[in-house]
Amino acid sequence: MFNAKEQVDKIIDFIRSYYKNNNLGGVVIGISGGKDSGVVAGLFTKALGPENVLGVTLPCHSKEEDKEDAKLVANYYGFRLVNIDLTNSFDSFKDQINLLGNFNDQQLLNSDINIKPRMRMMSLYYMAALESAIKGKTYIVAGTGNKCEEYVGYFTKGGDSVSDIKILSDLTVSEVIKIGEELKVPEKVLYKTPNDGLSNQTDEDKLGVKYSDIEKYINNELLDENIKQRIEKLHKNAHHKFNIPTYKK
Amino acid sequence: MFNAKEQVDKIIDFIRSYYKNNNLGGVVIGISGGKDSGVVAGLFTKALGPENVLGVTLPCHSKEEDKEDAKLVANYYGFRLVNIDLTNSFDSFKDQINLLGNFNDQQLLNSDINIKPRMRMMSLYYMAALESAIKGKTYIVAGTGNKCEEYVGYFTKGGDSVSDIKILSDLTVSEVIKIGEELKVPEKVLYKTPNDGLSNQTDEDKLGVKYSDIEKYINNELLDENIKQRIEKLHKNAHHKFNIPTYKK
Repeated sequence: MFNAKEQVDKIIDFIRSYYKNNNLGGVVIGISGGKDSGVVAGLFTKALGPENVLGVTLPCHSKEEDKEDAKLVANYYGFRLVNIDLTNSFDSFKDQINLLGNFNDQQLLNSDINIKPRMRMMSLYYMAALESAIKGKTYIVAGTGNKCEEYVGYFTKGGDSVSDIKILSDLTVSEVIKIGEELKVPEKVLYKTPNDGLSNQTDEDKLGVKYSDIEKYINNELLDENIKQRIEKLHKNAHHKFNIPTYKK
Repeated sequence: MFNAKEQVDKIIDFIRSYYKNNNLGGVVIGISGGKDSGVVAGLFTKALGPENVLGVTLPCHSKEEDKEDAKLVANYYGFRLVNIDLTNSFDSFKDQINLLGNFNDQQLLNSDINIKPRMRMMSLYYMAALESAIKGKTYIVAGTGNKCEEYVGYFTKGGDSVSDIKILSDLTVSEVIKIGEELKVPEKVLYKTPNDGLSNQTDEDKLGVKYSDIEKYINNELLDENIKQRIEKLHKNAHHKFNIPTYKK
């Protein structure tokens, strides 16, 4: 039986011991307004104290609403939240792409969706290096991916997959929510339907499977053969994100 | 004894077989004007044909000279080279940072240096997804890191370390140069003193060790204890770039 309180204590120990052993100072977390970053923020605030947590909102042609939900999290836990609007930087980049040719929306779809998580990663590392220089102690970037997302490769290589410490990677969606309840993550954030904020689709629409089914699959409890095959296919197709072919002489 | 001709054949086989097994179309390579990307471009052009190679120059407040050297490579091998100037996108990002406070050059130094390889990675993946959509066959991003650089962690996490295929990772600097001679990479590019184009220092100045010594170390031929310790320290300090601490429940 999953014991959320016990897990919270163990994760806090894990964070504290890694920080102590490596003489680290603080953490930078991208706060999307969704449950995963809310839970990660709650855990780091408890482990390090709010004064060592920096949250960052990273809108890019985004809804204001996500920023408001990020503020709910920051206000509840009491850590500093800064905003870096990536819209102009993205648009300047796109101006350069437009110099290369006339591309239609369909051709640009995947490029435009996946550049944003990469710009966000780059921004979080920018802030981590800047905080490290200002505070004179090393800040690192926390990952927010959970076990279900990672299993089906639902992340952008070089984007949200890049981080310095991962605390949710072994926890399924329902386990993350239980931890969030234990940590009292604001309900609006914790129970929000997961979406990437990029494609106007929910995660489950994009994946074509439900997180609850991925979770059952991981726990060997999934019975439906069609859904099983779909999950296995997603996992197999994500293989290249984990294993980079490397020539050996 | 290192046989450059034999290695060229083996690398070409490696590339072709990976492309065939995964039904891939082409490759995107960031062309810096230095030897590593020159050698990678030569190998991919021979393996896939120049029509399936897209080179990208990615200046960001950069010297025009690097772009000219990239053209030497593209012209010699006959692949298409496009330019994406990241200067405006970088400046727009910096405008947002300036809204957060007044930071001095020393505080911004590491942030400003490391954001550029990340912007370049993001641009290469942008072009790979765009080419894939246009050509209807998958383009992937080639890494250009060599064995000496990787051993001492001389790369930016989430930047030049992110790629879809790595062909130089098991080759030392002198081996890369021998392969470049075999491939007739333009001499100006092949024998250029390696520098990151970011910090106004050569790689060796920044590292505090010579590539030839890293190579000797890798080959168990290095005698000087002080240099040995310096290399071991660099390697140890890079540990966190390869091993992300991950909580297990």
